[in-house]
Amino acid sequence: MSWHESYVGRVLEPDYRFAARHLAPHLLDALAAHLRTVADLPIAQAPAARAQIRAAHQALLRWHDRPLPDFSPEVPDAFFAVYRALEEELGAASAGWLRVGLSRNDLDMTVYKLRARAQALQLGGRLLTLRAAVLEQAERGIDTVLIAQTHHQPGQPTTVAHYHLAIAALAARDTARLLDAWVRLDTCPMGAAALAGSSHPLDRAATARRLGFAAPVENTYDAVAASDWGVELVGVAQSVALNASRLVCDLLAWTAAGWYRLPDALVQGSSIMPQKRNPVPLEHARARFSRAAGAAQMVAFSSHNIPFADLNDFGPDLQGTLQTQHTQLLGGLDLLHACVREGRFDTEALAEVAAATDTSATELADELVRRAGMDPAAAQGVVGRMVRRAGAEGRSAASLGPDDLEAAGGPRVEAEIVRDALDPARFVARRDGLGGPAPTSVRAQLTRAREALDRDRARLAGHEEQAEAARRELRTPWS
Amino acid sequence: MSWHESYVGRVLEPDYRFAARHLAPHLLDALAAHLRTVADLPIAQAPAARAQIRAAHQALLRWHDRPLPDFSPEVPDAFFAVYRALEEELGAASAGWLRVGLSRNDLDMTVYKLRARAQALQLGGRLLTLRAAVLEQAERGIDTVLIAQTHHQPGQPTTVAHYHLAIAALAARDTARLLDAWVRLDTCPMGAAALAGSSHPLDRAATARRLGFAAPVENTYDAVAASDWGVELVGVAQSVALNASRLVCDLLAWTAAGWYRLPDALVQGSSIMPQKRNPVPLEHARARFSRAAGAAQMVAFSSHNIPFADLNDFGPDLQGTLQTQHTQLLGGLDLLHACVREGRFDTEALAEVAAATDTSATELADELVRRAGMDPAAAQGVVGRMVRRAGAEGRSAASLGPDDLEAAGGPRVEAEIVRDALDPARFVARRDGLGGPAPTSVRAQLTRAREALDRDRARLAGHEEQAEAARRELRTPWS
Amino acid sequence: MSWHESYVGRVLEPDYRFAARHLAPHLLDALAAHLRTVADLPIAQAPAARAQIRAAHQALLRWHDRPLPDFSPEVPDAFFAVYRALEEELGAASAGWLRVGLSRNDLDMTVYKLRARAQALQLGGRLLTLRAAVLEQAERGIDTVLIAQTHHQPGQPTTVAHYHLAIAALAARDTARLLDAWVRLDTCPMGAAALAGSSHPLDRAATARRLGFAAPVENTYDAVAASDWGVELVGVAQSVALNASRLVCDLLAWTAAGWYRLPDALVQGSSIMPQKRNPVPLEHARARFSRAAGAAQMVAFSSHNIPFADLNDFGPDLQGTLQTQHTQLLGGLDLLHACVREGRFDTEALAEVAAATDTSATELADELVRRAGMDPAAAQGVVGRMVRRAGAEGRSAASLGPDDLEAAGGPRVEAEIVRDALDPARFVARRDGLGGPAPTSVRAQLTRAREALDRDRARLAGHEEQAEAARRELRTPWS
Amino acid sequence: MSWHESYVGRVLEPDYRFAARHLAPHLLDALAAHLRTVADLPIAQAPAARAQIRAAHQALLRWHDRPLPDFSPEVPDAFFAVYRALEEELGAASAGWLRVGLSRNDLDMTVYKLRARAQALQLGGRLLTLRAAVLEQAERGIDTVLIAQTHHQPGQPTTVAHYHLAIAALAARDTARLLDAWVRLDTCPMGAAALAGSSHPLDRAATARRLGFAAPVENTYDAVAASDWGVELVGVAQSVALNASRLVCDLLAWTAAGWYRLPDALVQGSSIMPQKRNPVPLEHARARFSRAAGAAQMVAFSSHNIPFADLNDFGPDLQGTLQTQHTQLLGGLDLLHACVREGRFDTEALAEVAAATDTSATELADELVRRAGMDPAAAQGVVGRMVRRAGAEGRSAASLGPDDLEAAGGPRVEAEIVRDALDPARFVARRDGLGGPAPTSVRAQLTRAREALDRDRARLAGHEEQAEAARRELRTPWS
Repeated sequence: MSWHESYVGRVLEPDYRFAARHLAPHLLDALAAHLRTVADLPIAQAPAARAQIRAAHQALLRWHDRPLPDFSPEVPDAFFAVYRALEEELGAASAGWLRVGLSRNDLDMTVYKLRARAQALQLGGRLLTLRAAVLEQAERGIDTVLIAQTHHQPGQPTTVAHYHLAIAALAARDTARLLDAWVRLDTCPMGAAALAGSSHPLDRAATARRLGFAAPVENTYDAVAASDWGVELVGVAQSVALNASRLVCDLLAWTAAGWYRLPDALVQGSSIMPQKRNPVPLEHARARFSRAAGAAQMVAFSSHNIPFADLNDFGPDLQGTLQTQHTQLLGGLDLLHACVREGRFDTEALAEVAAATDTSATELADELVRRAGMDPAAAQGVVGRMVRRAGAEGRSAASLGPDDLEAAGGPRVEAEIVRDALDPARFVARRDGLGGPAPTSVRAQLTRAREALDRDRARLAGHEEQAEAARRELRTPWS
Repeated sequence: MSWHESYVGRVLEPDYRFAARHLAPHLLDALAAHLRTVADLPIAQAPAARAQIRAAHQALLRWHDRPLPDFSPEVPDAFFAVYRALEEELGAASAGWLRVGLSRNDLDMTVYKLRARAQALQLGGRLLTLRAAVLEQAERGIDTVLIAQTHHQPGQPTTVAHYHLAIAALAARDTARLLDAWVRLDTCPMGAAALAGSSHPLDRAATARRLGFAAPVENTYDAVAASDWGVELVGVAQSVALNASRLVCDLLAWTAAGWYRLPDALVQGSSIMPQKRNPVPLEHARARFSRAAGAAQMVAFSSHNIPFADLNDFGPDLQGTLQTQHTQLLGGLDLLHACVREGRFDTEALAEVAAATDTSATELADELVRRAGMDPAAAQGVVGRMVRRAGAEGRSAASLGPDDLEAAGGPRVEAEIVRDALDPARFVARRDGLGGPAPTSVRAQLTRAREALDRDRARLAGHEEQAEAARRELRTPWS
Repeated sequence: MSWHESYVGRVLEPDYRFAARHLAPHLLDALAAHLRTVADLPIAQAPAARAQIRAAHQALLRWHDRPLPDFSPEVPDAFFAVYRALEEELGAASAGWLRVGLSRNDLDMTVYKLRARAQALQLGGRLLTLRAAVLEQAERGIDTVLIAQTHHQPGQPTTVAHYHLAIAALAARDTARLLDAWVRLDTCPMGAAALAGSSHPLDRAATARRLGFAAPVENTYDAVAASDWGVELVGVAQSVALNASRLVCDLLAWTAAGWYRLPDALVQGSSIMPQKRNPVPLEHARARFSRAAGAAQMVAFSSHNIPFADLNDFGPDLQGTLQTQHTQLLGGLDLLHACVREGRFDTEALAEVAAATDTSATELADELVRRAGMDPAAAQGVVGRMVRRAGAEGRSAASLGPDDLEAAGGPRVEAEIVRDALDPARFVARRDGLGGPAPTSVRAQLTRAREALDRDRARLAGHEEQAEAARRELRTPWS
Repeated sequence: MSWHESYVGRVLEPDYRFAARHLAPHLLDALAAHLRTVADLPIAQAPAARAQIRAAHQALLRWHDRPLPDFSPEVPDAFFAVYRALEEELGAASAGWLRVGLSRNDLDMTVYKLRARAQALQLGGRLLTLRAAVLEQAERGIDTVLIAQTHHQPGQPTTVAHYHLAIAALAARDTARLLDAWVRLDTCPMGAAALAGSSHPLDRAATARRLGFAAPVENTYDAVAASDWGVELVGVAQSVALNASRLVCDLLAWTAAGWYRLPDALVQGSSIMPQKRNPVPLEHARARFSRAAGAAQMVAFSSHNIPFADLNDFGPDLQGTLQTQHTQLLGGLDLLHACVREGRFDTEALAEVAAATDTSATELADELVRRAGMDPAAAQGVVGRMVRRAGAEGRSAASLGPDDLEAAGGPRVEAEIVRDALDPARFVARRDGLGGPAPTSVRAQLTRAREALDRDRARLAGHEEQAEAARRELRTPWS
């Protein structure tokens, strides 16, 4: 009997090619770990059994250096391709040990989690790199006043540093989400077999340890039927993508306004319009974030209204989607990182905008409360009147002085008080409380943000080392 | 000047009504907490100032007992409605203290987080209740063999308990996601003012503490511009909804198969077709989970390709959506909880299915390895042949014995060995490793699941108490 | 027996309230139409039967003028509430005629389609209104040169009119989508009963006609089980929302750049920052479009992986969601319409931008091909060199003349040729082919766009009249 | 200067590879059509110009037979790769004609629409094939009674044919959606240049005709900036996917219940569990429909909150996503088609279910109205009592007779009347109105469904021929 051409052409062959390209090393690792645990079983202690198992193990390791067998429409998947090759090479008795207490159900889920772990580490790495670049931009912009917008209009003075520290905090929370998701990802399905575990006393904790997992998934049904960890990972990816889309939105607007400049290696020009400097990497980043955000729905639909059981929907059929989202997201992050790392604010342009602003007027009202003992409502009334009059006369906030204040019904104060209050740089400098834009405040935030970055770097490195150590050990011939 | 009728009718009025109905207590709490922090400022230490502030505080508290003022198209929002009422009642000098270092930006975000925190606690409570009911179902089903499906066909014997413990593990992970998200939700934007904080030395940590938050959001720009916590919460809700949709799918299939029975209070009948017992609460639960899952996209779109700044998209405009998703999700969970708590498996029907199954055949192969020293591949070959022959003769697995095994090329073993291996209950009992379906194994899982439930209950209760204690204190007149 | 409190509180009661508020007139119309068709049945020809049916019909009509009965937890839905009231008022014999060949399945689907039809007409009306306002803006902007952006940088000169005609074309396609969807919406499920139709020879075409539908849904199973028309409608709504989000994006950017100005009734100001004119209606429109776009997923999930059968998922349970999306979308369109209708371009600001542009340089190359017989590649090379040199010297394109062209290796041409070619207004005027920005071309487009608008208006009015005529007739007492 | 490695590695290179693999023939066709239109310009009439243009055209055609040049990081895209190759081969003067009145903006959008058109035709073809298979299943099942479910419980008798005719109607509506979308897809952007058209009098209608489009996109700005046609296409795909998911849901349930059987070529077995016949193609189809439905969100996000301008988001960056969705959807449809075409209902199993049903009881009530002159309410009351009593006594509906009816308070009727009314086959046969399940009714529906299928087949074939004729002509050397 041979399978229907649609089943072969739409399922078996593309799945096999995907596995051969993306999953093979994880498959071999999972099988090697399983074989070592099988070797500890009572039934495996006879010398003949031991020799058979060792031979199978060595043969497995050799597959790391060559491609999987070519696709054959008679072989249902990559596991069977490897298995049959071992049978041919070593005989059924030796190869058969691989299948003791093993099902494709637990094997596949383990392979998918190994791959998801690797992708999570890559994503984590990109978040750390982006955070570092954002903090460098913050460091450079401690004294660069930025008139931040609210509701698409000039809102209040702050600094380039303050804005970027907010972005860094956002990315730090995304890193935390990833690390939280890791806890639920870092558990090993092996030993669950089809769903009920095995009657052989397999040491599931040992297999998990051999694969660098923190622990086995306890319940064996859960191990093969749950798809929540995939939904969670793409949810984290969606969060990253949406947050990043907002930064991109600002960088594009600032580029269009001439406040932000990308180097030539990150713009597309026109042979005939020399001023044309299209910041297309930002646009391409945005498009990638859009797709990464949308791809989360492919995963959500795949876990919707299906039985809680071992199924293809969130198993083999989802791997390409996870790959797509991962590629989109990392592509977007790489492009964004380049634009943050190599983009520079035009401090002159920003200074001009700051000089012309009236967004600091609220500060004068605060000063009148502090310096002139006015009550807050009265102070705001006076300043509002003064600024409105100036606006009607076409005068900028910077031109205002004590006479204007008095004319608006305010108290007599020193010229310096008015001037200082309306100066955006002083506006910023006075906001030196927790998390404010004043340089002192920003420096403290910067220090804490770097410490947080170092902590996250250490945590991710720890996870990476654990996975790598396990891989190294597994790929070492049995001593 | 008055606002455009579309702006009034489509934005101001519905937003006001929503705030009056859902947000007022949080708004009053946030204002009260802010006022207490303002009272600690140097500018507030004069006796006149102190009296003004106290009067404002007392007036605020009184609003807890009455509805907000009626909507007026001249008043932009609920804050201004309260503020103007205070102005009228106490005069501008007293009311004005409310606005020291306050903006609607930080105020609104605080109100939204207070509300989100309350909803998160409600969701957490529902997850705990569902887990408890699932564990009770597990307890009842320790010895009830269930032939679990894989790929929509009978897969392997397990038990009702084992399945439900997997569901409990799933719900425990969703609880963990919620508790993880709580960490990022439980931070207070107050004191961020418009975005740059205030030049008054407001103690932001104190305001946060007064509102029962674990800490302030550090960076003040982040405090008013970030929308990631909303995206995360609906992501958790989506996870809950998708996981729940899978349980519903099974319960509906089991109900249709006659394996699961809901009480009359949870079915809809027909006056003319007495056997018609529609399990519509499950169907309505499914529909609610579908909508809760889809609603996550409303939130995702609202944070997509917008500036990183204070905006309406994820602020006032999103509150109705969050409310909708919350209502859908809680509705679904309530219905599902009722069906889990009051539904019962028909153990006779399940026993009949188990008696007729051949899904335990793999166990006989394992026995031949253990008892007859066969290698695994050979053992599987023999058993496969035997079962296929029986199938061709129309005999069930339960009828097979040593002769059949021998006829299929197997070794001679005792009848009991064959019978036991093929008995689904023994199949289950032998799977007594970590996380397996054997009663001993299940009891250990049950104990751990209950301990985990207790731990989560304590954590949620802790959060609840912190919020409640803050609320109580805030609503107490100033001594 | 009474139903479970979760079922009552989470399903029956909110559904009843929704039906009482939003669906009652449609329900009464559907019942009235059914009753008239029943009256034509052979079994209904006896005088007693006729009298009973007429009494039921008259009683039905009276319910249009009063609210449905209060919710009662014993009555499953609005139909039964009405039915039992009729039973009480007229006796079972009379009320019973309502149920001949009727099921809640076909009745409910008919009610939902009647409501969806009404919403589709409202949406259509909003699209027409928006298109009219967009065309007025185009009319005003025929001679207003706009340097259109591509890739977030100045791209080429066009006009305000040309841009708005593109928007009008987009909205016209959305109208076409709606009208196409109408064809699939405008079919009547009545007479399908539970799913198999009735053994009474009900004239389904007559019932459909009575309700103003174009035809019955042919297959009776299809009539109660299909949910595709809802998916299609929200798909149209999503298209409208996404297209509108792009217009909003431009209007916000132009407002921020000072090119576009909303009247005071459509901005939010600040008492203390008089220049602050937040274009919040655009922001609120954007937020509504985001939610309307996302809400489509709630509908998609509700039709995903469920049996093809009569179900609650896309029936009663979806009506609130459709209502939500409709409200969001109409809210967004109303706000956008106000901003298009009342917003004005600052022609001086646009003229300044046009005067400084170099985006017309490509036109000079085209002129050299036409006037100097150069081949296209050579002409582009010469112009590119000339403009780059000017850029390096800090000179604008407007300052360039024949000497510059010659110095760049070009031929000698008259000064007027260079000047004209680089003049954005001439650039526009020369693009007078099909669909181009030249005033002549734009006027032709405007004429066609208005004709298309008139045609669509007539089609929608036709649908509206058909529905209205049916309603009028149905609510008239039987003569 | 060379571009940043992230821009090269994440954008230029993968885009180039995609274009080389999937877009090249469309690109060459678009260029050839443009060149022919350029050849009609006044500036192209000199013999030298004509020769240059013809040489370029011939060189273009040759690229159909070889792969595009290898990717080079200096060449921004496939168009420039071809263009530079032509420059090298023929000289700049000849190649330069390609760029007269051409921009990558209109060129790319044309290429994407050509590709989308090809995919739409493929999807249309699959819908036709599926409809044909569904109608064959209907034909086979005219007399096969199926107890259809409502709300996951037995609902009413109908037939396999009736159900499949409903499915066919659903798929016919999806075909209609596709054909409607075609109208908006089948318009040609060429001649729009960057956005404002050209000052050369290019005959845009001629270029459109040469590419087999029905017409040019009128407004040139619209031509390069609109993304709505992509959103619409994936919306149609989502509708197809959701509708298909519902059919899959039923086929899986019927397979699990033993009512539906797939041939061996469409099941996966187990070597050791011979009865295990996993209908995995249905499961894989479901997974593909889930992903196709979810992928629509990737497209929606890509058109959300971006300017209405020529952009990468819905241009090059979206092509891979459209490809992914297309592959998933076609994969799902191929698998589903195989399962419909080769799956068979187990008529014996269905007959057993029908024999035991009580879902036909409503028919007896209808008979009492017709035969015994009872009013409908009274008839339903009597039958309900009778069936409930039988249920309490454990008797099936089929065992009921006139005595039972009388005992329940009903009139005396002939035994045959009771028996016939309760016989599911008679229940079906009597439902012979428009769209009912009676064989006569079903045959009429079948005839109409086949006519509709033929009409749609002719329409799609017409579109296909138009595209093919244009392609043939374009790839023919200039005579």
